[in-house]
Amino acid sequence: MKILQNRIIQDGVAVSTEILKVDSFLNHQVDVTLFDLIGAEFRTRFDDVAGKVDKILTIEASGIAVAAFTAKYFSSVPVVFAKKDKPSTMTEGYYFAEVMSFTKRTMSAIRIDNRFLKKGDRCLIIDDFLAHGQAALGLVQIAAEAGAEILGAGIVIEKEWQGGGDRLREKGVRVESLAVVTKIEDGEIYFKG
Amino acid sequence: MKILQNRIIQDGVAVSTEILKVDSFLNHQVDVTLFDLIGAEFRTRFDDVAGKVDKILTIEASGIAVAAFTAKYFSSVPVVFAKKDKPSTMTEGYYFAEVMSFTKRTMSAIRIDNRFLKKGDRCLIIDDFLAHGQAALGLVQIAAEAGAEILGAGIVIEKEWQGGGDRLREKGVRVESLAVVTKIEDGEIYFKG
Repeated sequence: MKILQNRIIQDGVAVSTEILKVDSFLNHQVDVTLFDLIGAEFRTRFDDVAGKVDKILTIEASGIAVAAFTAKYFSSVPVVFAKKDKPSTMTEGYYFAEVMSFTKRTMSAIRIDNRFLKKGDRCLIIDDFLAHGQAALGLVQIAAEAGAEILGAGIVIEKEWQGGGDRLREKGVRVESLAVVTKIEDGEIYFKG
Repeated sequence: MKILQNRIIQDGVAVSTEILKVDSFLNHQVDVTLFDLIGAEFRTRFDDVAGKVDKILTIEASGIAVAAFTAKYFSSVPVVFAKKDKPSTMTEGYYFAEVMSFTKRTMSAIRIDNRFLKKGDRCLIIDDFLAHGQAALGLVQIAAEAGAEILGAGIVIEKEWQGGGDRLREKGVRVESLAVVTKIEDGEIYFKG
């Protein structure tokens, strides 16, 4: 997605060889015009399965706005965002996966209330970043436990060398990334293609 | 907002006299069609200041989607969501406020990178819930520190008896709540008006 790639070049900051900072438009300050274009692009990428999507899954916090804008292009299906804290209102059963954060070097848990993910649900995963893939793999694990089907994973920015894309594909997940960064070197951001 | 009130009656669960569970459409599973109507309603409520809004402020996680859908009705101004964790990319200066959670009985911090909130910025606060008002007051404190102006606070559900609305008004903040719950008793949810 050329407009996204240009925006990353213009406003992204290569903090290190591992970390790309895009907080001015993606995950702290949000450009809703861009998010709307991103939602439309995901529709184009997944148009062949669009009629089958029952639900969009994401993870709080920065996946939520992307997922919500994408849902509009998939007949406004419900968005379910996995929670990182256990809310006081999560009083009944829930699905649970442990997720390792490589950046923070911590383990955390993500949870989805079992009322919102059912056997046979056909889901699209939407998230802002795909790095090592731990968060998305957590969603895949939860979906498998629920008996739900993953139609694909739509990612805004994939950091290819961190291997999350390969790990998801090994699990049989179709991955569509709108910008694929192949490396960050000397403050320069390199894209695939 | 009648459609919202009806939805709360239909799908909300009175967990206790203090806690209203609306996770099936507001803060775990998200109904984007309703969120779009909520955004439009905030525009109606704040139409008199709409031309002045430079930025929409909210707090992760469940405020994000409401704020993003609302921004579309305010000339797609940027949405800035305060972070609850300090991200590894927050490497420069940031504004900071301590926030008490009454439900969880814990203190936490919210942060906004000082690149995204400037002196003179005219901001609308948008959030899903107003209870004791601690989160919104944290945003008001941060805005004051930045020299930004708060034009008002748009709230999806206010739990009136917990006092957050009064606390904000005492600070001079105009509050517009789309559904005002006056009490929860014997599993029944009571609304203002």
